[in-house]
This record gives sequence, structure tokens and C-alpha cells, in this order.
Amino acid sequence: MAAPGENLRINGDRLWDSLMEMAKIGPGVAGGNNRQTLTDADAEGRALFQSWCDAAGCSMGVDSLGNMFARREGTDPDALPVYVGSHLDTQPTGGKYDGILGVLGGLEIVRSLNDLGIKTRHPIVVTNWTNEEGTRFAPAMLASGVFAGVHDQDWAEDRTDAEGKRFGDELDRIGWRGDEAVGARKMHAFFELHIEQGPILEAEGKDIGVVTHGQGLNWTQVTITGKDSHTGSTPMPMRRNAGLAMARVLEKVEEIALSHAPDAVGAAGHIDIYPNSRNVIPGKAVFTVDFRSPQLEVIEDMVTRMKAAATKIGKDMGCEVEFEKAGGFDPVEFDKDCVAAVRSAAERLGYSHRDLVSGAGHDACWINRVAPTAMVMCPCVDGLSHNEAEEISKDWATAGADVLMHAVVETAGIVE
Amino acid sequence: MAAPGENLRINGDRLWDSLMEMAKIGPGVAGGNNRQTLTDADAEGRALFQSWCDAAGCSMGVDSLGNMFARREGTDPDALPVYVGSHLDTQPTGGKYDGILGVLGGLEIVRSLNDLGIKTRHPIVVTNWTNEEGTRFAPAMLASGVFAGVHDQDWAEDRTDAEGKRFGDELDRIGWRGDEAVGARKMHAFFELHIEQGPILEAEGKDIGVVTHGQGLNWTQVTITGKDSHTGSTPMPMRRNAGLAMARVLEKVEEIALSHAPDAVGAAGHIDIYPNSRNVIPGKAVFTVDFRSPQLEVIEDMVTRMKAAATKIGKDMGCEVEFEKAGGFDPVEFDKDCVAAVRSAAERLGYSHRDLVSGAGHDACWINRVAPTAMVMCPCVDGLSHNEAEEISKDWATAGADVLMHAVVETAGIVE
Repeated sequence: MAAPGENLRINGDRLWDSLMEMAKIGPGVAGGNNRQTLTDADAEGRALFQSWCDAAGCSMGVDSLGNMFARREGTDPDALPVYVGSHLDTQPTGGKYDGILGVLGGLEIVRSLNDLGIKTRHPIVVTNWTNEEGTRFAPAMLASGVFAGVHDQDWAEDRTDAEGKRFGDELDRIGWRGDEAVGARKMHAFFELHIEQGPILEAEGKDIGVVTHGQGLNWTQVTITGKDSHTGSTPMPMRRNAGLAMARVLEKVEEIALSHAPDAVGAAGHIDIYPNSRNVIPGKAVFTVDFRSPQLEVIEDMVTRMKAAATKIGKDMGCEVEFEKAGGFDPVEFDKDCVAAVRSAAERLGYSHRDLVSGAGHDACWINRVAPTAMVMCPCVDGLSHNEAEEISKDWATAGADVLMHAVVETAGIVE
Repeated sequence: MAAPGENLRINGDRLWDSLMEMAKIGPGVAGGNNRQTLTDADAEGRALFQSWCDAAGCSMGVDSLGNMFARREGTDPDALPVYVGSHLDTQPTGGKYDGILGVLGGLEIVRSLNDLGIKTRHPIVVTNWTNEEGTRFAPAMLASGVFAGVHDQDWAEDRTDAEGKRFGDELDRIGWRGDEAVGARKMHAFFELHIEQGPILEAEGKDIGVVTHGQGLNWTQVTITGKDSHTGSTPMPMRRNAGLAMARVLEKVEEIALSHAPDAVGAAGHIDIYPNSRNVIPGKAVFTVDFRSPQLEVIEDMVTRMKAAATKIGKDMGCEVEFEKAGGFDPVEFDKDCVAAVRSAAERLGYSHRDLVSGAGHDACWINRVAPTAMVMCPCVDGLSHNEAEEISKDWATAGADVLMHAVVETAGIVE
């Protein structure tokens, strides 16, 4: 199969118009979107997407978790499809691009191939995964997780939102439960285009991130128990200040993450102090240390060293220290051939690029378990995401979708 | 005037029985008390106290903030009274002794003098100050503050509780607003017995704390603004982690307080992190630094150095740091003669003692502004207070009230 010519480009204006059209559904309060999964707005967004897929001549399949699969036929009836996509659901105060760019970028591939009359040997299937965000029904990447065999479907359907509504009931209510068994489809490959959700590409002036790995994650919840006591009447040497012990652990978290620079990261985003009163020395501090790295052994080293340091700090300060694993997933190494297809696509099209490790989780991280997978990233302004002010430029979206198309088409094979 | 003989002692059993009787009113859920100011339970406690004062032959005066003054006459009609007392109100999950010991210890002086037929030249007035705790209506020591001219009475009456009820309305509702103008009374001296609310006396095996000073206090609320960003996709060098900056400031607070050892103390009991999500690097940290010392210049030095250190930490980490004074009061130096009377009383009675700086605020700290004042402290188990598990022994209570009586009677003058 020949690589597609460098003059093969998507229609950036059409892609952008579709992004803006989709953003009208489930508008946010500050220019972004609130189109949470399995809401009426989600149903409306799905219907719009389906109408566009219909117009592009695709056939639509829907599985029993609402995952949508819009298929453009290939020329070889025995060739497994190349899948491309992401998710249309958003955070409650989400942006217009997180996920949506990956779905509509996939649709734009189909539209562009239709415009140019290009046929591929493998079918191309544009996918919308249900509930990537996990903000209404935790965890994130729920339906792609079931598809990849990570979660049990019954368990997934029993997830409830803050009002106690079940995932399965809400899926029925909005009318998007399909007949297909989840995970029954076999894939030749899967590609996902996504905004970076971090600041690296913009800061370095790069058009394209070639995602080689997904960071693994360990969340360790640390509970330090000292003693509540009066901030005035307790002499310094008699204090068992859990807040100060926590401060010392936070410094260690930074030091340990920096020792594995540049890829490893560590921080605590969640911190609760008890009783949290101005005149009471904290008797308890509960916080979650988030360590990430593309290498499992690095994560394990960081967690081990943090626990040892925290235990020593606690001992020196008369505090008890306990640890509980609060979450985690193993690092992801994307498929070498798929990654190479993305990198060579960026080269061929003349876009500046760099290899990137995804810091966030994506549907592609689960699908990588059942199919050769890779991701393309484009910059986003100031690294901002999960925020209505999330922004990208039309040029960035166009470059990302161009690279996505070349990687997909090269993998699907142009029929000369 | 002769000092009272060492065989002059209060009745420790009667004092203890009264403490236990009072503790039946407004019981807590865990063996302590919930007798918050201006509640029905407070009214009931006041009525019990009044009945005991009546039985002891005292006349009762009540001022227009509900402060109660039970007077035992002296022999000299021109002599100003010696005041003694504390408060009967408690924290929502308070103990049986914080404040109550000081009021009922004063009552026990009257009862013991009655038993022994001892007359004093100056009248003795046992006082119950309204709303010392400040937990229902902030700030603490509210009515003694108005008495001492620190607060305006209208402002005090306009304080509201969590349900929006006004202090003044609740005072009327429970029927304890008196006719006297607040602060109209002139005092020869004021003595307050209180549990230490700290661990020093118990740790050193001392019976009595001779309180020479009240610590001054400065509360500085520090706001550090960094940038919310993803814990996974933000490289370490691009982070502006307000939580880590806070951790570094907390370490400085400890270092600065220790540099003024042993009397100065510093800590942050109140810490809020935003958005406080496991996978978001804290964009904002708001915390209150509590510095205390019996010397004003030490407090000022600590605050100045903390602000400089925090500003530098913020600058080095790309965070903005702002400061707001959230509270404070100047150190208190109690009256030398009154303090000497407490110290010599402990000596005379053979109780072990040490000088002490009060770390907490007390009604005596305000009354010291308008009358010669001193305090007596007794140990409490494990330094625990503002807690239903607050505990003292009958021996400790007896020793404290003995010393209180000797100091009061020496100041009031025994009539031979």
C-alpha cells in the first residue's frame, strides 16, 4: 500500500464549522459546554452526529452501552476496519474540543475521502465512546473500558450519578441502547486525535504530538494522625502537628518526582485538614499523592520512597501515618507501527512535531489492550482543559485532523 | 491586712459536687456539655447559679448584656469589690470545667467564708460573664469585651448565630437582660481561675499555674494563587503549585516560631485548597497562620519574617501571595500585685507552682484593661479542652480554688 500523497488534506473549515455546530448543543454558562453523558443534550448531540454520518454515506452500529460506530466501507470484505474516534460527552463545565475533535476529526476523514473519491481496502469506522468523562458516572472511560474487557458490563450499568440514577436506566431513557454486544467488534487498528490538555506543544511551538505512551498513575491516600491541640497553649515541643507533617511529605513528593525528571510527575491535589479551625493545631491531615510516569517501575519506586519518607517524618513528629491505594492504572505503550504511522504522517505533511506521553487517560488507553492503537495530539491554549475557556485554533485542529487522516488512510490502505 | 492563714481552705467536695450538678444542665453527647450561650440550657444554668448565690446570702446584679454579679458584702462601705469569676457557657462539644470552675470556685470562696464566719473589708463579687466561648456568637469574650470598652454594645447585640438569630434578641428571649449599664461597675481587682487548656502543668507535675501574661495573637490569612492544572499532563517545571508553596510556608512558620523559643508559638490550623481535586494541581491555597507570644515585638517580628519568606517562596514558584490580617490581640501583662498574691497564696498553701503564660484568651485578658487582674490555672488531663473528654481531678480543682480564695481574701482584706 502506498502512503497517501502530501496533497491529501482534510477540509479545515468544514471541520471547524462542525465543531461549532456541535457546541451549540448543551451549551455551558461561560462559552463552553455542559453535555454530560446520557443527558438529553447527549442524545441531541448523538442524533446530530448520526445525521452527519448518514449524509456521509456511513452505516451506523450501536452497542448495548451506546457506543456508536459509523462505518465507511472498504474494498476488501475480509479486512478488519480501522477505527478512529473519541467521545462527544463533556465535563459539566467542559470545553468544545476535548473528545469532540477526535470524533468529528474522524468524520472529516470520511467526508474528505468522499470528496476525493478515495477508496480504502479496510473499512474506516468513526466511533463515539459513551461516558469518557466519568464526571456524571465514575469512572472515566467507562464504556471503552467495558469494550476492552477492563470492566464488567453489569457493573458499569449499575454506576449511579449524584441523584442516584443508574447508568443503564439513563441509557435506556435517552434511547441510545443498541443491540450489539459490547466488545464483539474486532479492530485492525484504532487512532484517536485529542487536544493535549497540557502546555507542552504550545510552549514549544509544535503542531503535533506523537503520543508514544500513556502515563501510568498511582493515587496513594495518606492519612497523618497527630493530635488536635490549642494553637496558643501547646508549647512547640509538645505539638503533634499533622499539617506540618503533611507539608514535609509534600516537599518529599516534589523531590522524588524531580529525581525521575523529565517524564515523571508528582503532586497532591486533594488535601483535607481536621478540624480545620484557626486555633486548633491540625490533628489529622488526609491527602492524595498522585504519581505518574510512562514506566511502571518508576511509579513503584516513587510510591515506595514516598511511603518511607512519610513514615519517617511521622515517626520523628509523633504522628501516625497510614496509606491507602486510592486508584491507579498501569502505563500504556502504544503500538509501534501505529505510532510510526502518526509520526511519518506529520513528517510527510510538514507539520512540526514531537513525541509526547499522554498525562491524562483516554479511550485509546483501554482500546490499546485489544487493538493496535496510537494517538495524535494538537496544542490547546495555555494547557487549559476541563474548563469552558478551553481553546484551540482552527489551524491546530486542521493539522491534527490532517495527521489523523494520513495515519488512518495509510493503515487502511488506499486502493489505487 | 494579714494574709489568710494556711489552714483556710475551701471545701473541695462541695465544689466538685457543684461542678457535677451544673454539668447535668445542657449535657453533651459524650460526657461533656453543650450549654452554649443564650440557649435554654444557659438560662437553666444561670438560674441554678443564682439559686446557689441566693442560698449563700449574696445579692445578684445583672447588666444589660446578661453578665451576672453575685455580691457578698464587705465591712467597709467605701471599698470597691474584689471580683472573681469566669463563664458558665460552653462549646457545642465542650467540657465540664472550662469556665465553670472559675465561677463555681468563686462561689465556693463565698460559701467557705460563710462557713468560717470570716468577714472581708472589700465586698467579694462572683461573676459569670456572658458568651465567653464565642462559638455561637463570635467573637469570644464578647460581654467582658464590652465591659472593658473593647467592643461597642450595639455591635455586640447585633452579632448573629448560624441561624441568623441576634445576640440581643436571644438575650431577651431567655430573660436574662438586666438593668445595669455594662461596664459601670468599678473593681478593686479581678481574679479568674481556669483550667490550663494546655499540657504544661500536668507534664511537669505542678499543681498551680501563676499566670503572668496572656499571649498576644496575630492571625494572618495567606492566599497563594498558582494555576490549576492537570496533575498528569503538566510537566514539573511548568507547574505553579499553590499547595506546594503553602507547604514551604508552613515549614517557615515552624522555623520562625522555634527561633523565638520557648514562649513563642506558630502554626496553621486552617487550610483550604482549591479546587481540591485529586487530579488537579492546586491553583489556590488559603490558610491562616497563628503566631502568639507574650511580647508584641516578637509577634511583629514573626509576622514580618513569615510574610517575607512567603513572598519569596511565591516569587520563586510563579505564585502570587497575598496577606490579610484575620484577627489579633495584643499581649496582656497581668497586674504585678495580683500576680504576686496568686504566687504567694500557692507558696503559703504548699502547692507546687510555676509561672505560666496563658495561650488562650480569657475574660481576664479584657478585664485587665480596667482593673488590676490576675489568673490562677490548674492542670487538665492531656491538655485537652474544647472537647467533651476534657477532664481534671478533684485535687486539682481544690488546689486551684484554694489558691484563688487566698489571693482574693488577701486582696479583699480579712477583718480581724
